Amino acid sequence: MRFQERNRSSQGLSRRGVLHTHHGPIETPVFMPVGTQASVKSVTPEELLECGAQIILGNTYHLFLRPGHELIGRLGGLHRFMHWDRPILTDSGGFQIYSLAATRKIDEEGATFRSHIDGALKKLTPENVIDIQQTLGSDIMMCLDSCIPYPATEEEVKYHTELTSRWAKRCLERRTREELLLFGIIQGGMFPAWREKSAKDLVNMGFDGYAIGGLSVGEPQKLMLEIIELVRPLLPDEKPVYLMGVGTPEDMVEAVDRGVDMFDCVLPTRNARNGMLFTSFGRIVIKNSRFASDEKPLDPLCTCYTCRNYSRAYLRHLFMARELLAYRLNTIHNLSFFLGLMQEMRKAIEEDRFKEFKREFYRKREKTCSN
Amino acid sequence: MRFQERNRSSQGLSRRGVLHTHHGPIETPVFMPVGTQASVKSVTPEELLECGAQIILGNTYHLFLRPGHELIGRLGGLHRFMHWDRPILTDSGGFQIYSLAATRKIDEEGATFRSHIDGALKKLTPENVIDIQQTLGSDIMMCLDSCIPYPATEEEVKYHTELTSRWAKRCLERRTREELLLFGIIQGGMFPAWREKSAKDLVNMGFDGYAIGGLSVGEPQKLMLEIIELVRPLLPDEKPVYLMGVGTPEDMVEAVDRGVDMFDCVLPTRNARNGMLFTSFGRIVIKNSRFASDEKPLDPLCTCYTCRNYSRAYLRHLFMARELLAYRLNTIHNLSFFLGLMQEMRKAIEEDRFKEFKREFYRKREKTCSN
Repeated sequence: MRFQERNRSSQGLSRRGVLHTHHGPIETPVFMPVGTQASVKSVTPEELLECGAQIILGNTYHLFLRPGHELIGRLGGLHRFMHWDRPILTDSGGFQIYSLAATRKIDEEGATFRSHIDGALKKLTPENVIDIQQTLGSDIMMCLDSCIPYPATEEEVKYHTELTSRWAKRCLERRTREELLLFGIIQGGMFPAWREKSAKDLVNMGFDGYAIGGLSVGEPQKLMLEIIELVRPLLPDEKPVYLMGVGTPEDMVEAVDRGVDMFDCVLPTRNARNGMLFTSFGRIVIKNSRFASDEKPLDPLCTCYTCRNYSRAYLRHLFMARELLAYRLNTIHNLSFFLGLMQEMRKAIEEDRFKEFKREFYRKREKTCSN
Repeated sequence: MRFQERNRSSQGLSRRGVLHTHHGPIETPVFMPVGTQASVKSVTPEELLECGAQIILGNTYHLFLRPGHELIGRLGGLHRFMHWDRPILTDSGGFQIYSLAATRKIDEEGATFRSHIDGALKKLTPENVIDIQQTLGSDIMMCLDSCIPYPATEEEVKYHTELTSRWAKRCLERRTREELLLFGIIQGGMFPAWREKSAKDLVNMGFDGYAIGGLSVGEPQKLMLEIIELVRPLLPDEKPVYLMGVGTPEDMVEAVDRGVDMFDCVLPTRNARNGMLFTSFGRIVIKNSRFASDEKPLDPLCTCYTCRNYSRAYLRHLFMARELLAYRLNTIHNLSFFLGLMQEMRKAIEEDRFKEFKREFYRKREKTCSN
């Protein structure tokens, strides 16, 4: 068994598990920092480990365009290329193609689009995304999916959902490296019937894990949670469940409570570079003048490198002066916060006190920053 | 004695010494990485130590404008603010004011200029640059000097050189924290008589060290070395000699051979961010396509973090993709190269084989990069 459920909450669906990959085990629930272009922006692999990262994301679309998967393959694969010897999951590029709305064409064969780098015409198909991910040596490969805008008509949802199922089958048939896991991606938009259809199609094919795609695309949180509540019971308990592109700390706590095991999001890293920092008592915008002479650490409860060594005043100065170190110190903090939150959730589940953890999580956020 | 000369070459003027500061000793000859705005761009203090840094530079002009020396003073001084507990030298701001040619006014009292940040009218005088540096807690403070353009008429040189001497005297009179060293800055342009006058004026006042200013302003290397050869014998052997804003590895080797003890330059850090890397066999422009699939480290003879863990192909990829990590990995390498070169020079002087070291240094650079 590649996935083992170790503990299950007596209330709610949260669970504590281990996913075994070619580069070692992953303790779930897990948050996966995003390293789109073979680098989690501004930080080294050593820093990621210190922040508590177990697995990071790469992106098939980006690496296919630059520097090219064949080059990375010749240099020994993505792990060696970027000096990261723990697990890597690669997104298939479905979401990136979806974002290129103006220049893409989707047909039965795959997606044709113009490169955002040089405008060259490129094609991703279910077959070549598997080839690319196998060449990269990704521990968890994702099927090519056809994303659905929000809102969308039922006709659009039907087309993309059925196409995603046909593509998933072709991905499964193409895969040759059995030691690399392959996850299917559930679509279905916000239509319960199509979500059910998508989940059943993919479960029947038999993947190593199931991703819930097409969420966090602008819909209200309530709707997102309803879709999770609908889909989750349709998925086998012996497989990990991955909620793609989600999300805020609140989203992740709610999703874990509904049985989700894996998450990825650019939020902690991107917001760090924009000066928005997550703390145990809520969010901080570091350029706010009230931090100008504040000698306290960002989050007095945090033990990350940034909080151990620097004041809010210094972090504000670096950010205002556009010093490169600002982006790194902020990223280290935000990643530590997200990864620490997952660790707290894992512990709470082990001790069967997830509901209590959740109450405390919200209680802390109601308190305002004590300056 | 704050400066001790430990070894002296039997050929040439190179010497090995120790300068004692409020935050510990500095082994000379020394290169000082530049951390203008309370940060050596892209790297942490821990990384600076790993690169071999003993002392770093801050800039009075920049810190006065942002975040303000008084704020830094209230937060415990510059060392604590930036989490660096080794020595710091602060440049006085003379050179920055000189660079603001269009918006500055120099008179007997000091320099009036418009802030490059918000256009506000500001003033630096010999007195307030000392106040600012004492508030920052700089281990080595620099006098305010009046820089001279290159080329310049003798009349201009006379005015700025004499003004620099009068300002130096006012700096010395203003200083109250005796535990912080104060260096005078020699001007005199490219006129031997005015260089001599400047050196004598300052030596008569009695500073803790002497800086040769107004070089590396566009003049040929030969002329720079002639000025050093002229000025150096006029300075007392019991004081350190600092060549400001210099330079290339070649400049530093030649200057050490002529009796210079201290250097600072943005070259390793700025060039790193532009993708120009220093190696034992010469310079590399990392974006060059010949490195696209090169799995060798930047410099096979280098043991820095970057060379231990990453290929040229990866560094090229990061640079082409404008990944923030590129700037850091390149900076770590270039600083390690500059600081390693100083360490080699110190060792060569200790073993009295500086001429041999110098021959070998040039010999390695004649060999082209073996791909």
